[in-house]
Amino acid sequence: MKEKDLMKKAFILARKGRGLTGLNPMVGAILLKSDKIIGKGFHQKYGGPHAEVNAINDAELKGISVKGATLVTTLEPCCHRKKKTPPCTNIIINKGIKKVYYGSIDMNPQVQGRGIKKLKSSNIKTVFVDSQKNNDQLNRGFLKITQKKLPYVTLKICMTLDGMIFNKKSCSSSIGDLKQLKDSNNLRANYDSILVGVETIIADNPQLTYRGTGDKNLWQPRPIVLDSSLRTPLDSKIIKLKNNPIIFTKLSENSNKSIKLRNLGCTIIKLKNLEPKTVLKSLVKNNVQTVLVEGGGSIFSSFLKSNVGDQLILYYSSIFMGNSGLNIGHNLDRQYKLKKNITKIKKIGNSTMMVFES
Amino acid sequence: MKEKDLMKKAFILARKGRGLTGLNPMVGAILLKSDKIIGKGFHQKYGGPHAEVNAINDAELKGISVKGATLVTTLEPCCHRKKKTPPCTNIIINKGIKKVYYGSIDMNPQVQGRGIKKLKSSNIKTVFVDSQKNNDQLNRGFLKITQKKLPYVTLKICMTLDGMIFNKKSCSSSIGDLKQLKDSNNLRANYDSILVGVETIIADNPQLTYRGTGDKNLWQPRPIVLDSSLRTPLDSKIIKLKNNPIIFTKLSENSNKSIKLRNLGCTIIKLKNLEPKTVLKSLVKNNVQTVLVEGGGSIFSSFLKSNVGDQLILYYSSIFMGNSGLNIGHNLDRQYKLKKNITKIKKIGNSTMMVFES
Repeated sequence: MKEKDLMKKAFILARKGRGLTGLNPMVGAILLKSDKIIGKGFHQKYGGPHAEVNAINDAELKGISVKGATLVTTLEPCCHRKKKTPPCTNIIINKGIKKVYYGSIDMNPQVQGRGIKKLKSSNIKTVFVDSQKNNDQLNRGFLKITQKKLPYVTLKICMTLDGMIFNKKSCSSSIGDLKQLKDSNNLRANYDSILVGVETIIADNPQLTYRGTGDKNLWQPRPIVLDSSLRTPLDSKIIKLKNNPIIFTKLSENSNKSIKLRNLGCTIIKLKNLEPKTVLKSLVKNNVQTVLVEGGGSIFSSFLKSNVGDQLILYYSSIFMGNSGLNIGHNLDRQYKLKKNITKIKKIGNSTMMVFES
Repeated sequence: MKEKDLMKKAFILARKGRGLTGLNPMVGAILLKSDKIIGKGFHQKYGGPHAEVNAINDAELKGISVKGATLVTTLEPCCHRKKKTPPCTNIIINKGIKKVYYGSIDMNPQVQGRGIKKLKSSNIKTVFVDSQKNNDQLNRGFLKITQKKLPYVTLKICMTLDGMIFNKKSCSSSIGDLKQLKDSNNLRANYDSILVGVETIIADNPQLTYRGTGDKNLWQPRPIVLDSSLRTPLDSKIIKLKNNPIIFTKLSENSNKSIKLRNLGCTIIKLKNLEPKTVLKSLVKNNVQTVLVEGGGSIFSSFLKSNVGDQLILYYSSIFMGNSGLNIGHNLDRQYKLKKNITKIKKIGNSTMMVFES
């Protein structure tokens, strides 16, 4: 198998860590001997062993020695101490691994090329299989937190050609056609969490799950609800599905409703306000790296105004709603010129998708 | 020169007839002898000589005989009688032209291949240089009138991402950025007329002219104003520019204001109502083949509702106007699902263009 294909496989492994790595990046690793894969691993728990170590364990548990093996890893192996696990470089050296293909440099200032240097100085052959962009895309949440102490935020909304999100209701999935809905649902596989306002929960009772290819084996994003007075119904689908929802409220965490919701598996967090920045900071504390904000209109406006979105995804379905519609900007009290560039436009069925990025 | 390049040149000539051919198609023709262009012509006046005849006259006026020459024409030469001019096929045969390259078949049921047959039967070599699509695009107004007795109509509007066309005003060019405005202005070169409501004339006082490459030599589209009570100011730019504006009104054609406007070069047409279909039918009578409807919002809604648009061009600039804006659909009292398909989406500067066609 070619290096590039092996690296692709390692990235597929890395992705399995979504939602599990806490504030660590997602990393995947493969071990090879005589062109045969002998071990696979990914980083699957914050504080737990790194992908490289999991791949070594995988091989050794099958009774295969990794001496002389080749390691393929999506990220430069770590070399720093003073953290929950020992440096991977030392383990790689001690285990007698001969060659390391790495897909990206670790931007952590404590590593940043030092891991590779360390391996070289121990006569391990290192080969860069440039996948930096892949890694930066996969770990955009981790990178954003490292740089700005905030999660990576995408605002996504589907509207009609005249900017309407629904007929006097707060949000709905009834605007898009099937192809658009599928495309929009597919986005969810790339996020740790999906954020909505309580109005959306009450009006639409959405599942907020990814329902595309391989959904059964994937970690589902955590539902995040902004619900100042805890109006989330106890029988909401997001609660029944038990995907670890977080509900932000201004009420006491010990109120009757709080206790009931907590007993049903929700995390209830009291904040003094539900401003986007306050919420996002709290999400980092809860190990959320990426947030897909799905509306409705008020939530969209407040996130837009507070300028915390890294990416904006707009779907326009080929309908004019007319004057009975509720406009996406009904809560926006001033003109807002996007400081982002259009990075992608795409026809999806008979809808149009626009992507804006900083 | 290759056949295709010659045909391109003939189409450039044909385009010069925009606005001048009345209810006839635009046609261009070139005459060649020993690979040298000896004559050029286009159909330049309803009832006047056809492009082929103009090309022959052009050569002969320079003292060059067309005997044995090759003719390149965008459209199959006509062969039918009972019209203002004699059949071109006879002239071509009589003049001793040897070869004819033609770019498209004339869909007029009185011609439709019979012109070519006639030439062949006189031992003239005929070669089809397939430009049917070009011709159908260039003469889409002519074709629409032939089939439906209505002009070809494009609805065009620029709005913000939330569907706003302006702040409580009826229309404005201030929403788009320079690249979008240029692109939008370029469209005008392909229409006989530009239609707006009187509110747009009063609020924006637009020129309604094409201001792109070669604008000095091009026929400018006719401004069409829907103005039920003749409020068009006498000093409007469209009147000063003298591009033969047509003003549709419900007032008498002999009212004081009518007379004043007529004296300034306007055509005043009284209609019992200013519904899109009524207006469009009257435009055909006035030899208008193509209409670019530019707004504002009320005009847009009424054209959308009456389903007379062949094409819809929407520009979205990267701004959210918020709740002080006037929505494109403010006059649309019911949901309107487009029965057209997206045929093009394009990034223009930091705006998006969507084209819908039946």
